[in-house]
Amino acid sequence: MRIVVLAGGIGGARFLRGLKAAAPEAEITVIGNTGDDIHLFGLKVCPDLDTVMYTLGGGIHEEQGWGRAEETFAVKEELAAYGVGPEWFGLGDRDFATHIVRTQMLGAGYPLSAVTEALCARWKPGVRLIPMSDDRVETHVLVEIDGERKAVHFQEYWVRLRAAVTAHAVVPVGAEAAKPAPGVLEAIGAADVIVFPPSNPVVSIGTILAVPGVREAIAEAGVPVVGLSPIIGDAPVRGMADKVLAAVGVESTAAAVATHYGSGLLDGWLVDTVDAAAVPEVEAAGIRCRAVPLLMDGPEATAQMAREALTLAEEVRA
Amino acid sequence: MRIVVLAGGIGGARFLRGLKAAAPEAEITVIGNTGDDIHLFGLKVCPDLDTVMYTLGGGIHEEQGWGRAEETFAVKEELAAYGVGPEWFGLGDRDFATHIVRTQMLGAGYPLSAVTEALCARWKPGVRLIPMSDDRVETHVLVEIDGERKAVHFQEYWVRLRAAVTAHAVVPVGAEAAKPAPGVLEAIGAADVIVFPPSNPVVSIGTILAVPGVREAIAEAGVPVVGLSPIIGDAPVRGMADKVLAAVGVESTAAAVATHYGSGLLDGWLVDTVDAAAVPEVEAAGIRCRAVPLLMDGPEATAQMAREALTLAEEVRA
Repeated sequence: MRIVVLAGGIGGARFLRGLKAAAPEAEITVIGNTGDDIHLFGLKVCPDLDTVMYTLGGGIHEEQGWGRAEETFAVKEELAAYGVGPEWFGLGDRDFATHIVRTQMLGAGYPLSAVTEALCARWKPGVRLIPMSDDRVETHVLVEIDGERKAVHFQEYWVRLRAAVTAHAVVPVGAEAAKPAPGVLEAIGAADVIVFPPSNPVVSIGTILAVPGVREAIAEAGVPVVGLSPIIGDAPVRGMADKVLAAVGVESTAAAVATHYGSGLLDGWLVDTVDAAAVPEVEAAGIRCRAVPLLMDGPEATAQMAREALTLAEEVRA
Repeated sequence: MRIVVLAGGIGGARFLRGLKAAAPEAEITVIGNTGDDIHLFGLKVCPDLDTVMYTLGGGIHEEQGWGRAEETFAVKEELAAYGVGPEWFGLGDRDFATHIVRTQMLGAGYPLSAVTEALCARWKPGVRLIPMSDDRVETHVLVEIDGERKAVHFQEYWVRLRAAVTAHAVVPVGAEAAKPAPGVLEAIGAADVIVFPPSNPVVSIGTILAVPGVREAIAEAGVPVVGLSPIIGDAPVRGMADKVLAAVGVESTAAAVATHYGSGLLDGWLVDTVDAAAVPEVEAAGIRCRAVPLLMDGPEATAQMAREALTLAEEVRA
């Protein structure tokens, strides 16, 4: 079975670990969000790709969900001593090495997809990880601070401002001119199932879908497309998805996210058992819906979620 | 008093510490060798500039003579785990930060001299440190390995091969087209004394003198130019200066180094007391010479060496 997963960072990465356990024989291709990539200290940082790579490759800081285990921060301390910021982005020494290798390879002319493959040669994530695009796409958020509106990089909104300021719009800058990376459309075209994990529907999956050709390829793939709600009981399981949903005018509910994707794209949707009442609303929108436990608290619960997603996909197919 | 010092790495840096102690009121300008600069992992590394900066700024690894004190090596370990080398160049985590800041500033368009000034704003070395040139000069060594000749970067010859292979020539690639960095010729022109510390006469001071205009400016400055022999008892005090002296056809003796510089450039020369017999030979070449203890074993001995150099300069002036 060939499964294609559109993934953001922590939520997507943890779900993928469950999916690998649930379908050990499957050939999994992950299309990773690069809209939250950022240049820091002259280095190219790809937080979502790295979170997937480190999580599946056994190098992740488990409690934190991002960054490396057993991390140290000598480089960051020194940069601060030089007065070089930003200080709000927590890059550790081990993590720096990844960005140094990536930046060196990009500088030598390799596209991001080839660089990602080279990095994965070390981590062996057990999936094929492809960035959504080799072209630069950078998610900016139009925020309002003290009555003044300005666009900031997504990471500044998310990490520095902790999504605590009003966001009026989310714009994946450069997306309209970006091309899917080599292998993206081919993987979608060859998939047996396409899964939207409980990643952020706006700045993770939404950004991947904003790359011209991706949404169309998924809609036309002719295979089940199933998703898992990142919203449980009207609040995001983690992160601040509700804030960016509000910015794009979508209610922070499991049903609203499903109808935001729409029945033209989505065939099946899993909501948490606490949101069982939302099932009829989602089904009325033409999307098959089931209520199952969606808290990824532990490997077995996560694998079970993945099994439920694959079961729903088979129901849709039949 | 304005003193200009042409400096390489460890020897030059340690001498400078003594000079600062010997002449606390002096305005010292250091023209630093950049011929051993190297690009590693996509980062610009300037070993000699950093050794001077760290030594005078209190950040040096004292025993080692180069690199940072209390250093860790997480980044290097990770790069090795990615299979990315070279592994023979020992960059520590704290040191990496310096190269990251430098590379970022160079990438933003600042010349190396401006970058060096910015880095020194943190380290406050108590001297004005200027790279010999903002242009790229890279010392290559023509080596012979298993009967085959090839050019390697100086660092590869020095660090990886430990100068243990035959060297036929030392070439400061790019020097003939390089311009002295802003401030270099002005500092030489305004100097009261010019000092060649016990740095490597070929790959440190020799490289600085290879930048068109520098040798001429020193010869025409009309002020005492005094040097200290890096060779004691026919062997280099540290490093492998004898190897590169042989490559340029100069004997590894205190006298031969003086006559290699020549009386057109050098007015005074200090040799160690064990080389007192060389004094007449040097003086016969038109260079005033004194034999004094030249082992930099401790701050006081080093300050005394600097005092002897300044005294010799005054003798020459009179």
